[in-house]
Amino acid sequence: MSGLVPQSLRADGGSTMYNRLLLLPDLRELLVADDTQAIAGFCEALHPAAVAEVLEGLEADETWRVLACCSSEQQAVIFSYFDLPDQLQLVETVPRELFSRLIEEMAPDDRVDLLERLDRERVENLLPMVAQAERRDIQRLLSFPDDSAGSIMTTEYASLPAEATVAEALEQLRQQAPDRETIYYVYVIDDGRRLRGFISLRDLILARPETRVNEIMERDVISVRVDDDQEEVAQRLARYDFIAIPVVDAQNQLVGIVTHDDAMDVAQEEADEDAYRSGAVVPLQDDYLSTSLGTLAWKRGGWLVVLLFAAVLTALALQSMRQDPQADDLKWMVLFIPLVLASGGNAGSQSATLVIRALAVSQLERRESVKVLLRELVLAGLLGGGLAVLSFLAAMGFVAVDQAAVVGITVFLVVAMGTVTGAMLPLGFQKMGLDPALMSNPLIAAVVDVVGVIIYYNVAQIVIDGG
Amino acid sequence: MSGLVPQSLRADGGSTMYNRLLLLPDLRELLVADDTQAIAGFCEALHPAAVAEVLEGLEADETWRVLACCSSEQQAVIFSYFDLPDQLQLVETVPRELFSRLIEEMAPDDRVDLLERLDRERVENLLPMVAQAERRDIQRLLSFPDDSAGSIMTTEYASLPAEATVAEALEQLRQQAPDRETIYYVYVIDDGRRLRGFISLRDLILARPETRVNEIMERDVISVRVDDDQEEVAQRLARYDFIAIPVVDAQNQLVGIVTHDDAMDVAQEEADEDAYRSGAVVPLQDDYLSTSLGTLAWKRGGWLVVLLFAAVLTALALQSMRQDPQADDLKWMVLFIPLVLASGGNAGSQSATLVIRALAVSQLERRESVKVLLRELVLAGLLGGGLAVLSFLAAMGFVAVDQAAVVGITVFLVVAMGTVTGAMLPLGFQKMGLDPALMSNPLIAAVVDVVGVIIYYNVAQIVIDGG
Repeated sequence: MSGLVPQSLRADGGSTMYNRLLLLPDLRELLVADDTQAIAGFCEALHPAAVAEVLEGLEADETWRVLACCSSEQQAVIFSYFDLPDQLQLVETVPRELFSRLIEEMAPDDRVDLLERLDRERVENLLPMVAQAERRDIQRLLSFPDDSAGSIMTTEYASLPAEATVAEALEQLRQQAPDRETIYYVYVIDDGRRLRGFISLRDLILARPETRVNEIMERDVISVRVDDDQEEVAQRLARYDFIAIPVVDAQNQLVGIVTHDDAMDVAQEEADEDAYRSGAVVPLQDDYLSTSLGTLAWKRGGWLVVLLFAAVLTALALQSMRQDPQADDLKWMVLFIPLVLASGGNAGSQSATLVIRALAVSQLERRESVKVLLRELVLAGLLGGGLAVLSFLAAMGFVAVDQAAVVGITVFLVVAMGTVTGAMLPLGFQKMGLDPALMSNPLIAAVVDVVGVIIYYNVAQIVIDGG
Repeated sequence: MSGLVPQSLRADGGSTMYNRLLLLPDLRELLVADDTQAIAGFCEALHPAAVAEVLEGLEADETWRVLACCSSEQQAVIFSYFDLPDQLQLVETVPRELFSRLIEEMAPDDRVDLLERLDRERVENLLPMVAQAERRDIQRLLSFPDDSAGSIMTTEYASLPAEATVAEALEQLRQQAPDRETIYYVYVIDDGRRLRGFISLRDLILARPETRVNEIMERDVISVRVDDDQEEVAQRLARYDFIAIPVVDAQNQLVGIVTHDDAMDVAQEEADEDAYRSGAVVPLQDDYLSTSLGTLAWKRGGWLVVLLFAAVLTALALQSMRQDPQADDLKWMVLFIPLVLASGGNAGSQSATLVIRALAVSQLERRESVKVLLRELVLAGLLGGGLAVLSFLAAMGFVAVDQAAVVGITVFLVVAMGTVTGAMLPLGFQKMGLDPALMSNPLIAAVVDVVGVIIYYNVAQIVIDGG
């Protein structure tokens, strides 16, 4: 075997960071020589994820030629390590026969992720060619709503009857091992497939062979429901440090498991979505470079137009200020419009960011809204006060003292308003059943702009008229 | 045993979501009755993470009374499931003797996380009371820099010599099992502790007992270096869907492993940091509600002051516009100052968000900077053009056509400038070895403000003078 491993790979004896730039020429040479045996050896010598990384440098037809040298099981594993956009691109050119074999061999959760992204027509043409057991499994998993536990779980879990002895259990696991996502966590079910207990392979190995599983299993199994939100699933799995968490239906029947790697993907996806939303981008399905410019323009443009309309409202507010007979006395105010509005918007972004993150990692519970409001009120006072003093001093460099006072007072009010708005909007959205990150930071800033201009103008009228 | 499980727990036979509000009264009653046996039963019946969740509702002294009913091993496991801020609060009141036993029993990575947060003096007082083997392990792990693989790894990994047979390996694992973080991934080392191979427990179970480990182990072990950044570690583990990844030193000696749950924590922490930075908050160490108001005010106020100074620069730019002899002819411009600046800032935030996320999940490589710049230039044209037309039309409702043209042209230029700035700054920061998320979205907006005002003014002079 080691004769088939490419030179550049063998040379690196130690901490192996596979560099596809180094391995790609080797692989290309093997393809030119049409040395199928050496290509098969190459794929076996590397971790399938590393093979996928190397193959990313090839054209689609070359990739299929490499995969053709592997067993169909290996093909499916390597293929699953491609990013979804790459998978979609690859299957565009693949013959239907080969595609259906690939689908049969892929893990249930991975293949459903792919099929969900294909045309419905294509899937319907494909399914009749897939073996019946796999077809049923696919149709069932496709039926679960997006973002639910059901849509990310796999049906390939290890299970045991409660009456088995440890020796029998280990023998059964040996038989289940080849086609189960994990055998390290084993679920104990009764005749009606209801979840009765849980045991880890570690516990099984440590137990005496003649012990019955139901004497040593954990009975209080922490599970999720098939219709639970995927974010909830990822959080619970992370909270308990599990390798996998069982998914049950309303009758407590075991229907699948979600494994740690899928939970990590979900956590990543949710963090992405929140980041995009707070930056006023409609969340992307694929990664940045794989997303077409048209899609990007669309996902950014929508928000920009909404924000532009909000800015027109600010212009309207400013216009009504200009029509005031005393407008000429207030001309100096223009200098500090950006300062006043930016201060409020920034404070609002901060509050929104803190509350959205706290909600995302479940640090906040519903009844803590009041606590958040109180904290943000105190911060509004502290930050607003500090910034008010600084802006007053800065404004003294430009304008008279009463005018500088207008700036200071306005900054205090606008920062306080921004802070409270930024904290309350995500909480309000959550209460309405919406995503707390829905209100992007720029939209909070836009709201602050409109209200800020009105506050600024009114403070000026009161202070200057009174002065 | 089941007689000791509280009623409210037994009642819920199915998908068990432990509700601490339901269990807390039971536990309080047991504490009042001083029924140590029942308390121990309570702790054993629940998953330690669930026990920790229930205990969060108790005072520190009550928590210690509950923990005192458990074995010291169980105490350490339950204690490890508390959040770090809660751990810090709990150890404030604990006697030194009890604390040192707890430290001895805790997992190496968890106890180092805690000790890193304590006063140096306190740690130095404590360490002499800890058993020698643990003390050395602590001192070694404490010596690794923050955010390195070494600082998050555990030293409790399972390992085997290459010459062992599968039967011997399983027997050795049985002995190692009780105090290893995981026995599902086993690392094969030589006499010099150099990492030679990897084998999973699944493979061991499937292999014939007389086979030698070195015949079936994987030789190309994917590992990380002890000084690699923790973000890199989490990404690599996620990429390969590993349960754990081995950590080696410069001599390829195995020094520890990082497990999937710690990698998930790191990914979460990094997502938090990026979100905070893009919202202009200095990243928090603890969660939102555990962070004191003073700390919050400090971590928010710093950025707000920096941004205020940037806004003063905008005021300066506006002032120089006012001193222009033609200033009166340009009075109408004030209406669209917020609109022009917000459009540029929003487009910049979008670009920065997209590039920062792409860098965070390693979608971008260094040499792809040019590709990003080209994409953002096209987007700058598309978005700037679209918004320019819309703002021109909106401005027509307020001012004359040549003035509206000034607004449209300015929006185009400012949006284009914001887009390119937002995309390039994170890439530039990365190139300089800094965190790409360092430039918060509000700071990009502040830069756009200053430059935007200058662009606005110059466009007006050229168009109006020319017209």
